[in-house]
Amino acid sequence: MFLRNHWYIAATPDEIGRDLLQRFILDEPVLFYRKKDGTPVALADACPHRSMPLSDGALIGDTVQCGYHGLEFDGSGACTKIPGQTNIPPRCRVSAYPLVEKWRWVWIWMGNPEAADPAAIPDFHWNDDPDWIPTGGRFYIKCNYQLLVDNLLDLSHETFVHPSTIGNAAVAETPVRTESDDGEVRVLRQINGQPAPPLYVALKNFTGNIDRTQNITWTPPTNIVIESRSMPSGSNDPDMILEYRVLNGITPATATATHHFWATPRNFAPEEDVTKAFHDGSVRAFSEDVEVLEKQQAMIEHQAALRGRDPTWIDINADQGGLLARREVKRLLESEQAHRA
Amino acid sequence: MFLRNHWYIAATPDEIGRDLLQRFILDEPVLFYRKKDGTPVALADACPHRSMPLSDGALIGDTVQCGYHGLEFDGSGACTKIPGQTNIPPRCRVSAYPLVEKWRWVWIWMGNPEAADPAAIPDFHWNDDPDWIPTGGRFYIKCNYQLLVDNLLDLSHETFVHPSTIGNAAVAETPVRTESDDGEVRVLRQINGQPAPPLYVALKNFTGNIDRTQNITWTPPTNIVIESRSMPSGSNDPDMILEYRVLNGITPATATATHHFWATPRNFAPEEDVTKAFHDGSVRAFSEDVEVLEKQQAMIEHQAALRGRDPTWIDINADQGGLLARREVKRLLESEQAHRA
Amino acid sequence: MFLRNHWYIAATPDEIGRDLLQRFILDEPVLFYRKKDGTPVALADACPHRSMPLSDGALIGDTVQCGYHGLEFDGSGACTKIPGQTNIPPRCRVSAYPLVEKWRWVWIWMGNPEAADPAAIPDFHWNDDPDWIPTGGRFYIKCNYQLLVDNLLDLSHETFVHPSTIGNAAVAETPVRTESDDGEVRVLRQINGQPAPPLYVALKNFTGNIDRTQNITWTPPTNIVIESRSMPSGSNDPDMILEYRVLNGITPATATATHHFWATPRNFAPEEDVTKAFHDGSVRAFSEDVEVLEKQQAMIEHQAALRGRDPTWIDINADQGGLLARREVKRLLESEQAHRA
Repeated sequence: MFLRNHWYIAATPDEIGRDLLQRFILDEPVLFYRKKDGTPVALADACPHRSMPLSDGALIGDTVQCGYHGLEFDGSGACTKIPGQTNIPPRCRVSAYPLVEKWRWVWIWMGNPEAADPAAIPDFHWNDDPDWIPTGGRFYIKCNYQLLVDNLLDLSHETFVHPSTIGNAAVAETPVRTESDDGEVRVLRQINGQPAPPLYVALKNFTGNIDRTQNITWTPPTNIVIESRSMPSGSNDPDMILEYRVLNGITPATATATHHFWATPRNFAPEEDVTKAFHDGSVRAFSEDVEVLEKQQAMIEHQAALRGRDPTWIDINADQGGLLARREVKRLLESEQAHRA
Repeated sequence: MFLRNHWYIAATPDEIGRDLLQRFILDEPVLFYRKKDGTPVALADACPHRSMPLSDGALIGDTVQCGYHGLEFDGSGACTKIPGQTNIPPRCRVSAYPLVEKWRWVWIWMGNPEAADPAAIPDFHWNDDPDWIPTGGRFYIKCNYQLLVDNLLDLSHETFVHPSTIGNAAVAETPVRTESDDGEVRVLRQINGQPAPPLYVALKNFTGNIDRTQNITWTPPTNIVIESRSMPSGSNDPDMILEYRVLNGITPATATATHHFWATPRNFAPEEDVTKAFHDGSVRAFSEDVEVLEKQQAMIEHQAALRGRDPTWIDINADQGGLLARREVKRLLESEQAHRA
Repeated sequence: MFLRNHWYIAATPDEIGRDLLQRFILDEPVLFYRKKDGTPVALADACPHRSMPLSDGALIGDTVQCGYHGLEFDGSGACTKIPGQTNIPPRCRVSAYPLVEKWRWVWIWMGNPEAADPAAIPDFHWNDDPDWIPTGGRFYIKCNYQLLVDNLLDLSHETFVHPSTIGNAAVAETPVRTESDDGEVRVLRQINGQPAPPLYVALKNFTGNIDRTQNITWTPPTNIVIESRSMPSGSNDPDMILEYRVLNGITPATATATHHFWATPRNFAPEEDVTKAFHDGSVRAFSEDVEVLEKQQAMIEHQAALRGRDPTWIDINADQGGLLARREVKRLLESEQAHRA
């Protein structure tokens, strides 16, 4: 069960072109391509005739031709040709999903198309702003998307999962403040006068203790912006500020697999080698998360199969953000279901 | 659910010998071997004692010995020895399935043995006729058998799946005539004055347009004969006729896997290099079908798991043959079930 | 469904050390390690917080630290630290399973800890006795544990599965006597004046017929001692006696996987090259069993899926031991369930 009347990141703009691309989103196979004028298209990726994936067919102009029996569909999902016959039944069509390119990502709307308002796309402007130097990527993680939301709303795990990059003892030992209103969840952590983690030392040559801010904002269903700012304790030197955002677009592929679109735009040191260090450090840390999340998912699946129910968990203080986000998702799911009924 | 009171191709004669062979047919594991006098034997391939596959045992004379506890079974399925005891309970036996060697294939009957009439074996005589030069093979396809029946009863797919061998635009654009009587389904296509597909040009050096006949006959449960005849448009030169049959014995292995026994006997150019060209072209085309069918099967399984029911399909004109065959199979299945009850 | 209030072999002593070890036992993931003083510890291997396997964490002193959020648990399963907070809810703990090191194995108790009486550990003393020369190992077999119990309670299979080591025609042809009392099952075979099997000839240079004793004792749930003694027929020469035990600790990993802990202590020829021959012969024979058991399990799973129920088996005389053991396990399971309810 997924929230459908929301925007999810489907791809980076360069992934969608004149080659047919299949990607599972919210458990649905989706076909992506660009029309000749560059407009991106997303269609349900199963021919309504006999379920052949359209992504195994051919792109002819702006039309996709099924690779099995040659039925053709335009970018609106309408069937435009059935070989050997002139009559085309109107219900011979596939769903077309609204797409919007924004913040250097392509966003998809898998719910009621009439409700697809681009203004509802979350503010990820740092990824497309001349004052910020972006870098980013995508991970495919074999876990339910909520495990990744939990992960990003509780950064105390940095201490144990990322000790060689962004984590040290100070993170887990510093309690957070959690706020929630208007369906938004914020988890705020202020670490003062503590050592810098290894990646920060490498990037900024911090020699003493630092003050470090980690402010996380979650908006439904799965958008997470982490505001990260560090500077030497007691310093006012703007050149010594290490500031970046971690932008996370978390898109369920299936019930047990997730696309993690991420970017870490920063506002200092635009040099390419710093970008490379930032990118490599991010990839290293996120790869550590992938390993943890897939092991966690496997254990949850084993426990669920053994007991015939989801495992019962003990909550700790640091979970408050994740629990509030799960509660809000549950409320929104019930609302979507009530509207459908 | 499979039709059982019918003949299915189980193997080619050379596959069955003095080595024990296991093959799944209609979801049942079947053991094949030949007696010393050459008679082929088919037995249920699970020891009734503790379910060990008998095909992992040994052939001693005409008797198979289980490789675990040494129980022995003769070619009728009767147990002839239980080590360490003299009493053999009569119900200690395995099913023996009637086999008939005909048309250079071995046919198996998995239903009521008393109803096994060799006269009901379909006419595939072209595979064993001095006037025809045969070649053939077997594919194991990870799809339900009905997808392959559909495939062979609607050759419009040649245009899109086989453009480098037997397909071109003319096939899909030429409507078929579909006939059905006495439980037999015929799909007839006559293409006149159209270019020849690439494999035909290579085989016959056609330089102009051709007239091409494709007449398909399906008989239950899964036997398909395709009569194919082509000649230059307006010509009467018998040397320029390209005529062959495509014989298809489609044997369900499991609900999601199928044995495709095929042969393409022709009545021209008996030279070995033509046979090789014919064989290679057939393998190439059928391999393209395997790819399509397995992708189609995977998508159907995904849709069924997601929606909790079989996908709903849009039918087109070209589907009429496949739909009639499916309807006849349904009718026969209900009849078999009624007889059993 | 497994019997829980019994001792099972969990590991050999050298497998448990300062590295965290995960092993599935009775379908539960279990974490093993040793405290600094050498005491072995077994804990449920899933953090109660968010199901992360603790075995992916770190051992700090005698405490295991979860690799995700840093919760710490001592050897009793109690949580001793939750980073960022001082309050530790008492129900934040994991099960600790009693362990006992005996007979050079580590035994685990997965049932009610208060009922864990080390005196109930079966007598496998031959594996830790100066008069006996032990050798042993462990197999991981993808089958239900009862198939291995059946295997070891009916050695007639030696004739067919192990003809190159311990089996020959005499084994299967010699009937057994089966006894049962006090929940113990004994299967006794006395073979007189028959040729020696190949491994025995290699070990003892038997040149004529031998008298061979195979006495099997099963105690619940899965402990099997095979007493094996052979000597030249009519001889009284103590130097010509070939005597050993086969000790079997059969520990269910999951419903379809089993740990087979085995040892073959002997009381003759303490030389290392004889130990190596004995070890290699045992490994060879047990490997043949693994192959049989995994094929049997696969066929049983296919039959169960196809028919929607366990396969119906024909019993033979040699099955009596296995049937009595299965009946006793069923009785004990019902008793455990009644006590729990």
